[in-house]
Amino acid sequence: MDSLKQLRVTQKSQAYWRITFDNPPINLVDTDSFAEFARLMDMMEAAPNLKVVVFDSANPDFFIAHFQARLGARNPSAPKPGGHYPWTDFITRLSKLPAVSVAAIRGRARGVGSEFALACDIRFASLERAIFAQIEVGAGLIPGGGGLERLPRLMGRSRALEVVLGCDDLDAAVAERYGWVNRAIPDHEFEAFVERFARRVASFDQQALGAAKRLVDLHHKGPTPAEFDETQAIFVEALTWPGAAARIPKLIEMGLGRPSDLELNFGRSLDDLAE
Amino acid sequence: MDSLKQLRVTQKSQAYWRITFDNPPINLVDTDSFAEFARLMDMMEAAPNLKVVVFDSANPDFFIAHFQARLGARNPSAPKPGGHYPWTDFITRLSKLPAVSVAAIRGRARGVGSEFALACDIRFASLERAIFAQIEVGAGLIPGGGGLERLPRLMGRSRALEVVLGCDDLDAAVAERYGWVNRAIPDHEFEAFVERFARRVASFDQQALGAAKRLVDLHHKGPTPAEFDETQAIFVEALTWPGAAARIPKLIEMGLGRPSDLELNFGRSLDDLAE
Amino acid sequence: MDSLKQLRVTQKSQAYWRITFDNPPINLVDTDSFAEFARLMDMMEAAPNLKVVVFDSANPDFFIAHFQARLGARNPSAPKPGGHYPWTDFITRLSKLPAVSVAAIRGRARGVGSEFALACDIRFASLERAIFAQIEVGAGLIPGGGGLERLPRLMGRSRALEVVLGCDDLDAAVAERYGWVNRAIPDHEFEAFVERFARRVASFDQQALGAAKRLVDLHHKGPTPAEFDETQAIFVEALTWPGAAARIPKLIEMGLGRPSDLELNFGRSLDDLAE
Repeated sequence: MDSLKQLRVTQKSQAYWRITFDNPPINLVDTDSFAEFARLMDMMEAAPNLKVVVFDSANPDFFIAHFQARLGARNPSAPKPGGHYPWTDFITRLSKLPAVSVAAIRGRARGVGSEFALACDIRFASLERAIFAQIEVGAGLIPGGGGLERLPRLMGRSRALEVVLGCDDLDAAVAERYGWVNRAIPDHEFEAFVERFARRVASFDQQALGAAKRLVDLHHKGPTPAEFDETQAIFVEALTWPGAAARIPKLIEMGLGRPSDLELNFGRSLDDLAE
Repeated sequence: MDSLKQLRVTQKSQAYWRITFDNPPINLVDTDSFAEFARLMDMMEAAPNLKVVVFDSANPDFFIAHFQARLGARNPSAPKPGGHYPWTDFITRLSKLPAVSVAAIRGRARGVGSEFALACDIRFASLERAIFAQIEVGAGLIPGGGGLERLPRLMGRSRALEVVLGCDDLDAAVAERYGWVNRAIPDHEFEAFVERFARRVASFDQQALGAAKRLVDLHHKGPTPAEFDETQAIFVEALTWPGAAARIPKLIEMGLGRPSDLELNFGRSLDDLAE
Repeated sequence: MDSLKQLRVTQKSQAYWRITFDNPPINLVDTDSFAEFARLMDMMEAAPNLKVVVFDSANPDFFIAHFQARLGARNPSAPKPGGHYPWTDFITRLSKLPAVSVAAIRGRARGVGSEFALACDIRFASLERAIFAQIEVGAGLIPGGGGLERLPRLMGRSRALEVVLGCDDLDAAVAERYGWVNRAIPDHEFEAFVERFARRVASFDQQALGAAKRLVDLHHKGPTPAEFDETQAIFVEALTWPGAAARIPKLIEMGLGRPSDLELNFGRSLDDLAE
């Protein structure tokens, strides 16, 4: 466990773990993150009594800011020959884990931060603090980590198009109405709500929990690993598109990837970029 | 009609029937219920002018409490050779009925009570009085009557997992947000709302109503009878699991199946069981 | 452009067009409309820089009232041999347009008016002014322009059945809860909200927008042109049903197709028809 630098693992019991994402200053997913996610999956898959795992953030303003995209660079997280992209591997393993995964979202969950939450089985959001966006198109890219596959299934084509093409920040109340999260909980009740849910599930019988999750998945066809890979390949390609080449340097100048007004108010900032 | 003991049939007109579930003290579905449901279907299928049927409850606190599970007992409602489970037959026939079925839900609809409502074409709930839960996992079982098949299609995978694995009581406002019901109506307007809807549909042309329902079903793929049977077989199996054997006697001690604080507040009571 | 009589095209820029439906007195879709929709599609498909198109109405009370059905008449908009119905052609071309289409709905959107909005990629509604209904069953018909295919996918089977069989007016708040529209926006903010969304999308990179829309559609299976045609053929047939023959003359007497209390309050008026 001490080999993980961005993830803090708290084993509240054999049945219930907390994973806290802590990658200062603004919880970017970077190329080191994928290796940590893979090692975390090794640990969770090796824990036979694990029933529930809650993902939260050490930074009250950022659940996960977004992916630290590098223009024109070869993607350092390319798939191994004959295998899947590391991110595809992680989200596939997470959804197949017999234990139920819960994203407890405070602060901004944009780009791959939204897609990390979407990869969890359940999403609870702080009503006042959580903010959601798929910002990729505003940077001349496309969402590469599951948003394009999952949002249309989750909120329908029209709301998914609004989110993906509009790139605006949605507060937790709207995210709840759109089905992006299960529920938005007032922040002063948020921690108690999540904790009660986790402890409750941890108290139930593992055989019943496992059978129920397996049967729900039998009746809900999600995207396949090949579909996730296909979109990621286009995302990698998009890093070389002229649109991204023109827009990302301007965004970096405005504060992309570091503590900044841009990172706090990305949705509004894209209006400034247009002018 | 007088041969039905748990169901009161009121023929308001040839086009509009009310069916009131009345099985004191808390409207449990028991093994007699399945035969009554089958006889009711015979009656409705033999009524050529029927356009709308509203299901309600004689008990203001319970729409349908849940199924009266008997530990370790062979399921007395096993499928006939080559046939479906009686419950599968009922919900399949109900959804194929040319008349539209409406659940008017006041009080608790848990377990098979929720699944009865889910088997109706339309669900209206009293905002203040209706409560929904799939409590089976909390009893060491799994939902066996359609919840696992229908909830993921209705509210998406994440909310279905929260409901099925969390086993908590949801009030009607949350149930509406999750799509569990069409609408939550303030209780003082509830009866008038349901009555207006039913009389309105009963006033429309039967050929148009029938064609419209048939075409909606052409564009909405629901679960198949075989899928319902498959889950029910696992439910029957689950009655013999160690988890159920450990948990159900404790629940009976706490008041399961009879007027009790447990039956009024099942969701909260599962926290007590954990302690 | 001046050859269009019912549609006013305002090219705010090469990237952003407004199309205003203006067919006094109550914005009925009539047999001339289909030819105008086809010519509009020719124009939009020939505009290589077009990124976003907003559809609104010149009449604050009616987005589009409904289709001007003629009893017993052969449908003048029949499909060409081997081809699709003109309406099927229009909605298919609109959804395949690389530019994103937005319905900005004030006033009543009933019947084909609702279905026009449903054919747009995104729907924003004025909270106080927008009203939605599929009124066809109340006229002894069935929805023929996409409602039966799209509503079950959009809001689930139960809410679609309520809308289609109940034929009632839904205000924008309920339409938002049901997913009929993306969002209901307070009317005093409505124009600014739509304008900001459109200008924002128009400022983004066309390659990224196009790829994102294409990928969303890869993960959202909508109805096929053949399915739309099949329902329209039944709609045409329904114009000869006895139910329509009995109900439509009464509706015409009550004000159908002209400025009237019926057209303002169609949902309520169907209760009067029943009496």
